[in-house]
Amino acid sequence: MNQHEQESIVNADQLQQVCSQLYQKAGVAREYADTIAQMQVLMDLRGVPSHATRGVPGYVRGMISGNTNPNPDMKTLADSPASALLDGDQGLGHLVAIHGMNLAIEKAKATSIGVVVVRNSNHFGAASSHAMRALEHDMIGFATTNGGGVNVAVFGARTNSIGNNALAFAIPAGDEPPIVLDMACGAAAAGRIGTARMYDQKIPLGWGLDADGEETDDPSKVAAILPAAGPKGSALAIIMDVLCGPLGGGLMGINKAYNPRNAPPEKISTAHFFFAINVASLSSVDEFKEEMDEQIRTTRKAEPRKGFDRVTLPGEIEWELTQERRENGIPLHKSQVQSLEELADELGVPVPWK
Amino acid sequence: MNQHEQESIVNADQLQQVCSQLYQKAGVAREYADTIAQMQVLMDLRGVPSHATRGVPGYVRGMISGNTNPNPDMKTLADSPASALLDGDQGLGHLVAIHGMNLAIEKAKATSIGVVVVRNSNHFGAASSHAMRALEHDMIGFATTNGGGVNVAVFGARTNSIGNNALAFAIPAGDEPPIVLDMACGAAAAGRIGTARMYDQKIPLGWGLDADGEETDDPSKVAAILPAAGPKGSALAIIMDVLCGPLGGGLMGINKAYNPRNAPPEKISTAHFFFAINVASLSSVDEFKEEMDEQIRTTRKAEPRKGFDRVTLPGEIEWELTQERRENGIPLHKSQVQSLEELADELGVPVPWK
Repeated sequence: MNQHEQESIVNADQLQQVCSQLYQKAGVAREYADTIAQMQVLMDLRGVPSHATRGVPGYVRGMISGNTNPNPDMKTLADSPASALLDGDQGLGHLVAIHGMNLAIEKAKATSIGVVVVRNSNHFGAASSHAMRALEHDMIGFATTNGGGVNVAVFGARTNSIGNNALAFAIPAGDEPPIVLDMACGAAAAGRIGTARMYDQKIPLGWGLDADGEETDDPSKVAAILPAAGPKGSALAIIMDVLCGPLGGGLMGINKAYNPRNAPPEKISTAHFFFAINVASLSSVDEFKEEMDEQIRTTRKAEPRKGFDRVTLPGEIEWELTQERRENGIPLHKSQVQSLEELADELGVPVPWK
Repeated sequence: MNQHEQESIVNADQLQQVCSQLYQKAGVAREYADTIAQMQVLMDLRGVPSHATRGVPGYVRGMISGNTNPNPDMKTLADSPASALLDGDQGLGHLVAIHGMNLAIEKAKATSIGVVVVRNSNHFGAASSHAMRALEHDMIGFATTNGGGVNVAVFGARTNSIGNNALAFAIPAGDEPPIVLDMACGAAAAGRIGTARMYDQKIPLGWGLDADGEETDDPSKVAAILPAAGPKGSALAIIMDVLCGPLGGGLMGINKAYNPRNAPPEKISTAHFFFAINVASLSSVDEFKEEMDEQIRTTRKAEPRKGFDRVTLPGEIEWELTQERRENGIPLHKSQVQSLEELADELGVPVPWK
């Protein structure tokens, strides 16, 4: 069976509506349920299924079973004109993160910049889905996160000593698509190595070390992921770890993982760091967007190197895919659709595409 | 003649004193002359001679001949509680940048975060020398810069389309050295490729493309530097360009270089972006430093991979070199010492090591 035959095409709006209703059935307030669903459908539209609606049944069932808090009692632990530290009360990561990014945006409206650290949270999905929420406010958005999953070797080390921390920037443009970077600091995502393993493909040297500390091209032998660009990716991973962890009174990833000093849950749970910069407070928004458009068009005109059809800006391919999928629907694996439909049946949520 | 024979050993304090006096003779106010000299000597101490006192004679002569402004009339073009945009009046880059970082630190004291964009400046030396100025205030510092030198190919392109933009983070620790990242977004610095050319050495594939757009290991054939880690370094370079350029009402690097719309000097001159985050506004400084120390010690204990004697944190080797050179003096190339001495003679500045 080819890939096409394994997929159903689902309309983005209908998918969003179903997901929002599922979250609401699990106890998430309408406003947040809509936003979470929107962010996850956006990742399906952008072609990032790993951080998209595929996770919805798991998240919803986690809340129904009481493992995740659908209605966290968020606490403000520190507050300054341009920054805040929030406690996420072990809530659903996306939900807690929405509160964090909303506050960063509010602060940026008032003081031009907002920095918000959130601790005691859970996995927040794609970093770019949070950073991109700044765009409609004509702000530059940034998001990063740390948790206790350490699967990358710090530069020079042979064993896992830091998380494959992701960071995302989103920058508004005018008529052109926004510039969006969403990168892990490791040479490759664990998921990508897993996919190569699944399909029995080799991986490039430089992605991972085997158990003996040697670079390997066999995805089944990867014991530690290497940092992207050696010391650069390694240092960026460490810095993202600091911004989410110690800056919020929590721990670095490796100490979250092994917790040698027996720290309490709020210090070892997943944490996030967000900032928003209000373009209007520094520059003319129109001039800013005009120059972004100019740069984007100039860059696209660059001659592609061998192996490339054209030169694109960060996030441009995902943006094009979004337009195409909004028009023609999102291909989802049939097992995912079935799993959503089953949950919808259980919870009495109508499924418009059935 | 081996390297050792080509060098003189100079005491750091004496070097700083001479450089400060040279800047003062060129018209820089004492306070700023001291800080510029301190920042440049720090780069000699850290083993980064390309961004250190080697540049002093050029900078001083540039001011004496009237090409650079030793006493710029800095203007505030935008001001919000947590951010500002400054015009550097074409002043000496280091000096203008000191004003920018000072303001970011002042704002961070008041509102917890300070973001300052500076335009109409010149080359500011090492990004880390600015970011590190946040450390003594128990703040996290960040600095980046853009100019019109485009020598990196955007991901997928074969010709130069963006600058090899540098970014630096500095993070305070407790008893351990601070974490300092100073990286270019390209796979290698132009200077490093130039050094390989000088010594007739090959460079690794992945650093640069030749005129035909093919990867080359011959440093004399590099026509465009490749971005570090492909799309990641490329996107980071673009984002740094935005933070310094359009966010401050100026242009992106490529438009600075070619200036197709004939923009005025203040939009195409070198620009900088700084931020400072006041740790105390979010977290306990003591707890923050304790966790940083813990993490640093844990990371050092990681087993090194083949080819590494030990695992170090970002900036640790430079910090160790600093301690050693403060004690034993800085080895400077004799031609550099001579050039400083000649200028000191001309300007009537005493040279204590002579």
